[in-house]
Amino acid sequence: METLAVSYTAARTLAAGPVQTAPPGPGEVEIAPAYVGICGTDLHIFHGDMDARVKTPAVLGHEMSGRIVGVGADVEGWQAGDPVTVIPLRSDGTCPACRRGHGHVCQNLDFIGIDSPGAMQQRWTVPAAALVALPADLSLDHAALVEPTAVAVHDVGRAGLAAGERAVVVGGGPVGVLIALVARSVGADVRVVEVSASRREVARGLGLTAWDPAAEDVPGLVQAWTEGAGADVAFEVSGAAAGVETAVEVLAVRGRLCQVAIHPKPREVNLHRFFWRELTLVGARLYDRADFEKAVALVADGTIPAPALISRVVPLAEAADAFEALEAGGDVMKILLDCSDEAAGGVK
Amino acid sequence: METLAVSYTAARTLAAGPVQTAPPGPGEVEIAPAYVGICGTDLHIFHGDMDARVKTPAVLGHEMSGRIVGVGADVEGWQAGDPVTVIPLRSDGTCPACRRGHGHVCQNLDFIGIDSPGAMQQRWTVPAAALVALPADLSLDHAALVEPTAVAVHDVGRAGLAAGERAVVVGGGPVGVLIALVARSVGADVRVVEVSASRREVARGLGLTAWDPAAEDVPGLVQAWTEGAGADVAFEVSGAAAGVETAVEVLAVRGRLCQVAIHPKPREVNLHRFFWRELTLVGARLYDRADFEKAVALVADGTIPAPALISRVVPLAEAADAFEALEAGGDVMKILLDCSDEAAGGVK
Repeated sequence: METLAVSYTAARTLAAGPVQTAPPGPGEVEIAPAYVGICGTDLHIFHGDMDARVKTPAVLGHEMSGRIVGVGADVEGWQAGDPVTVIPLRSDGTCPACRRGHGHVCQNLDFIGIDSPGAMQQRWTVPAAALVALPADLSLDHAALVEPTAVAVHDVGRAGLAAGERAVVVGGGPVGVLIALVARSVGADVRVVEVSASRREVARGLGLTAWDPAAEDVPGLVQAWTEGAGADVAFEVSGAAAGVETAVEVLAVRGRLCQVAIHPKPREVNLHRFFWRELTLVGARLYDRADFEKAVALVADGTIPAPALISRVVPLAEAADAFEALEAGGDVMKILLDCSDEAAGGVK
Repeated sequence: METLAVSYTAARTLAAGPVQTAPPGPGEVEIAPAYVGICGTDLHIFHGDMDARVKTPAVLGHEMSGRIVGVGADVEGWQAGDPVTVIPLRSDGTCPACRRGHGHVCQNLDFIGIDSPGAMQQRWTVPAAALVALPADLSLDHAALVEPTAVAVHDVGRAGLAAGERAVVVGGGPVGVLIALVARSVGADVRVVEVSASRREVARGLGLTAWDPAAEDVPGLVQAWTEGAGADVAFEVSGAAAGVETAVEVLAVRGRLCQVAIHPKPREVNLHRFFWRELTLVGARLYDRADFEKAVALVADGTIPAPALISRVVPLAEAADAFEALEAGGDVMKILLDCSDEAAGGVK
């Protein structure tokens, strides 16, 4: 069958055009994606920063919701019409990380939507093992936020954040705000540090306190807030050198820094402070099935206020414009691509 | 009473001369130190690197053994003649770190031997609360290794090192070797990375495998040793930028880096690797009473082979020469100062 797909072909170039789909093979299902979010990683690919890894043409997209339209042989428990999302991870099951039970960071991970075709198309075939069921009453546009919410659930879990603790989220983009919301949901008191005024406004609109590191003395504010103790946890979501510095500086004795953002190059880190205050730094990457299922519950029960985070919904065919808009920054949080046959003018 | 003391008076200057002692006050005991080890921190002070903190003249010394010679009012459970060592920490009990149960990293810590007078003297008055009993049959020269061993016990505990795990100790000086020995005693398989040939020989003499990072491909050796997985734990004890790099590079997915060494300035750290492999970095500083009591047991039962680690014992009055010898490096591990009245030619 011929359907519409959006492919990355070269730096700063996305092509929307027809692709051929094949029926799902054994153990696979075919999905009609409903909505696909555009992630920071998709933007990195669009910029050409990941050309060494991405084989072109590459259909992007890994934040999605949709419905099953076809079920291959040997697939049990799923049927056409089921609303689903997908854990976009295929582990080899045999590497040292997998053997130790950390398949989500498999040393030969196939990340679906980067290393193999993603969801920015009208029909998408994935392993049935990657499916996660969605509640029937969860809007599919909201459900497109499950994947980034699973990232936030994983990060909060890696930090070991507990009720009553104080957490500083450095970086208030989509992932930072989701971390702040998940942190609040476990009973933590949260502050967001974000340079963009419009993103601070989004955070404040969600009832979060947001500080401007360019105008305010963030370490001083944390000292006052915590009566001189410092924060129990900091999440470094900014990816900036200054963000790392802030995250280290605000922590209490035995505080934990959860490293979420990608830093392509080494950063100067105040290791003396790690020694002196016995700090901990934990790297956090992706998620596992339990994180995903928790994320479904948090989006479904409104803990994650999806409408406030979805800035715009555009038809799949206009993906290139959406990427440009995200790149321009401004007051955009999450943009979803509408992959429905209706939005695409019917299956091509 | 007038006794001999060794005081730091200015950069590169130690003065051995008489000081007046007063009888111990309420809650205090007076000790006749037997042996005092010279620590890396003492060397830093000697270099003048800590002049902003140290008030001169400063009697140094915090790695010690000795016997009680006087007991102040309100002290119970101790008497003259008891062999003891001292936890050289005085916490304020009221700061946020103390209130959370981390008094050993009190935000206003008085480190005895740096911030207040230390053990390099013939008579030393300390709070009875700082005493740790030594077994009657433990040689007092061996017991001078209890304090650095407590550091190692603390570090291994902070790393959460378990039996069957593989650990790389980057830096094979006295603390690194003690960490390796404590790590081995919990059932871990250990490798030491050390640039000094003579220190590698000391480690090998203790049955440890030691690698030369200048001549050998340490990450490659770790890959081969761990069948491609990487090490479970790395201890960064070198204080060098290259040591940090090695410690990060050798770790397995979910590996833990225990930061032991002091890095006076920020270091470049591969945060991407922390993200990608979900690594953890834990700062470790000093010790608590449980670490000290464990250290006494490990020195007493020979797990720590004290004679192999004590390079030399010199009279207290010759402290300045001992500091110079340590600074020159070479094949020196631990030098002890003999504080006995006999070595000093009687109490002055």
